[in-house]
Amino acid sequence: MPVSRSIQKALGSSSMIRKMFEEGGVLKKKYGDVNVFDFSIGNPDIDPPEAFRKTLLRLATENAAGSHGYMPNAGYQHVRDALARKISREQGVALDGRCVIMSVGAAGALNVILKSILNPEDEVVVCKPYFMEYRAYTANHGGVLVEAEAAANFNLNVDAIQAALSDKTAAVLINSPNNPTGRVYPAETLEELSVVLLRHGKKTGRYPYLIADEPYRELTYDGIVTPPVLCTYPHSIVASSYSKNLSLPGERIGYIAVCPQNDDADVLINALIYATRVLGYVNAPALMQRCIAELVEVKAAVDIYANRRMVFKRVLDSAGLSYINPEGAFYIFCKVPAGGDDLAFVDVLKKHLILGVPGSAFGAPGWVRFAYCVNEDLINRSAGSFKVAKEQFLSERRA
Amino acid sequence: MPVSRSIQKALGSSSMIRKMFEEGGVLKKKYGDVNVFDFSIGNPDIDPPEAFRKTLLRLATENAAGSHGYMPNAGYQHVRDALARKISREQGVALDGRCVIMSVGAAGALNVILKSILNPEDEVVVCKPYFMEYRAYTANHGGVLVEAEAAANFNLNVDAIQAALSDKTAAVLINSPNNPTGRVYPAETLEELSVVLLRHGKKTGRYPYLIADEPYRELTYDGIVTPPVLCTYPHSIVASSYSKNLSLPGERIGYIAVCPQNDDADVLINALIYATRVLGYVNAPALMQRCIAELVEVKAAVDIYANRRMVFKRVLDSAGLSYINPEGAFYIFCKVPAGGDDLAFVDVLKKHLILGVPGSAFGAPGWVRFAYCVNEDLINRSAGSFKVAKEQFLSERRA
Repeated sequence: MPVSRSIQKALGSSSMIRKMFEEGGVLKKKYGDVNVFDFSIGNPDIDPPEAFRKTLLRLATENAAGSHGYMPNAGYQHVRDALARKISREQGVALDGRCVIMSVGAAGALNVILKSILNPEDEVVVCKPYFMEYRAYTANHGGVLVEAEAAANFNLNVDAIQAALSDKTAAVLINSPNNPTGRVYPAETLEELSVVLLRHGKKTGRYPYLIADEPYRELTYDGIVTPPVLCTYPHSIVASSYSKNLSLPGERIGYIAVCPQNDDADVLINALIYATRVLGYVNAPALMQRCIAELVEVKAAVDIYANRRMVFKRVLDSAGLSYINPEGAFYIFCKVPAGGDDLAFVDVLKKHLILGVPGSAFGAPGWVRFAYCVNEDLINRSAGSFKVAKEQFLSERRA
Repeated sequence: MPVSRSIQKALGSSSMIRKMFEEGGVLKKKYGDVNVFDFSIGNPDIDPPEAFRKTLLRLATENAAGSHGYMPNAGYQHVRDALARKISREQGVALDGRCVIMSVGAAGALNVILKSILNPEDEVVVCKPYFMEYRAYTANHGGVLVEAEAAANFNLNVDAIQAALSDKTAAVLINSPNNPTGRVYPAETLEELSVVLLRHGKKTGRYPYLIADEPYRELTYDGIVTPPVLCTYPHSIVASSYSKNLSLPGERIGYIAVCPQNDDADVLINALIYATRVLGYVNAPALMQRCIAELVEVKAAVDIYANRRMVFKRVLDSAGLSYINPEGAFYIFCKVPAGGDDLAFVDVLKKHLILGVPGSAFGAPGWVRFAYCVNEDLINRSAGSFKVAKEQFLSERRA
């Protein structure tokens, strides 16, 4: 076998999003880009803000000596300090640059965190629905993903998480605003979770980390503010990036923030820095670090996404489809009509050139995720196709 | 324990280079930067070439729509194609862009390769001396590093590699031009190795990959050209970066090239792309990919390093110290006088404010590595200190 057994297996069962990508490509070639309603991908179509362009241009012009060279594995100190000030405000706890480690995006951050904390067979608890890559990230470092059942309203299911805890639990991994549901977990739910984790730690002598994957933190609607975790639970760690709020997913720039109230913060920070080095990231890209240090106060293009959300809701409403009202991120989680199968519904939608990702891919069968980080016109023009697809799906079910 | 057992252990035995970094920092604070002869680090002090500055500035000015967004995990196709043309020339084999996967530096490339091919307990054979991070990279993915003894002249020791092969051998990992010796492995040695690996594969049914870590390929002296591996052995893979030849180590831009003559090339390529995704790299940084696509023909600043090499040799000669004549890279591997201990010699050197890395850190006790990617003046001014340090070391040994 030319590749490892685990990779061979993973390649065999190619992911649903990947399948949708590939089929989407075929459809676009056949029918033209503008005629395919591709809501499959979380790749922001909005360009980075003007402030980013200006900063990048200025740094490229200055071309400071040594500015593309190595720096400490944790990142430039001035960048870590600038982020620490912002994170302190967001997370309701005073932390300094020492608690911030620059990463190769949030995906890099999560791998560094899991590498740092997992012993073989250790468990990472997630609550359905969840971003499917978490399973691979956990397996990379010898861990096992344990799924807690979803709550009916897709809030964090604290009871189910509690039931999933064991003496092998190294961490609980949450994502708010949530991909795929758009739910923002309320402060009181995080407090309940904190109580449960503290009680579990006291009982077993092992306090699970709470890892908060927060790339969508700034993308919220209707005045909702994403509640913080660092001030809620001392063993919490934030993973985030500038992929979504500044539309820089290709540049791979993110960070890790460690709760300063953790007595073992220093050991953890040293482990995160070591893991950054040996996992081959070495450091977050130098130029992008220096860019974002100057852009910590720049706001995401929330208004644009809010408009698209409104249009998408109108489209689904007029087709008689129900959904979770997104409180954040840029996904709308839509219920398959008449309690039907999500894979079947996705197939019918595809016949009408609408691409979404089945909820099964996130551990939530019976739902479909549509990404609205695409232009408003495309969303508007999909209305007729949604109606026809829904009717066809229902009549095929009756037949 | 707040971190994993393996990380705890690694942090406890902090690496020799790291130790040298830290002590160097203390010395520089105490005596001033210009008075410490810091030859410990492989961080090029030469800034990237003018062509890089121009390209970066132009791309930042153009600010093309979507240019910071996601692209396929393997990288932009035009970048892969541009590199494929260059690699085809260098490696003496015609490969297309499909065989090139963009990576987060050579360290990222090596982790992606090892993740793709290693089953638990699989072995990776290295020949001493070797870059010490290989051990951690291999362990990351469940593998075990197996050391083959060095050859007396620090050429690749094909007999020792042959003796180290087993049915668990997934790969042989080589590095030419070599860190720390500066040796460039001759074509005939690579051919001998190829014969051994083919024979082993035929016997066991498992052909070990030959992984060539080549970040220093272009940095060679005296007209030496680094012999290619892809045309020598069909199961070979190249890992490389623009860290050293374009002085961009902080930007984390590198690539993997797969031999097109491998019948399983497609499966391997898919595995490498999958590993790039799930290890959390996702893709090599977008802007740097687009930069280097236009700089594939730009040459490294070999002349500057050649001068420094000459000066460093003169300094060691005048102190009566012997060394391996560097054929490439920017390290000079110096023999400890009178067959002495490298850790003890490094300690004496440090008293005279000279920082080098003990050969023990590379599996070659009795030697010390000095990096000459520092300015020529510093090298020149170290001559007196080298002389005094050597005399002191010898007189302490006699005492």
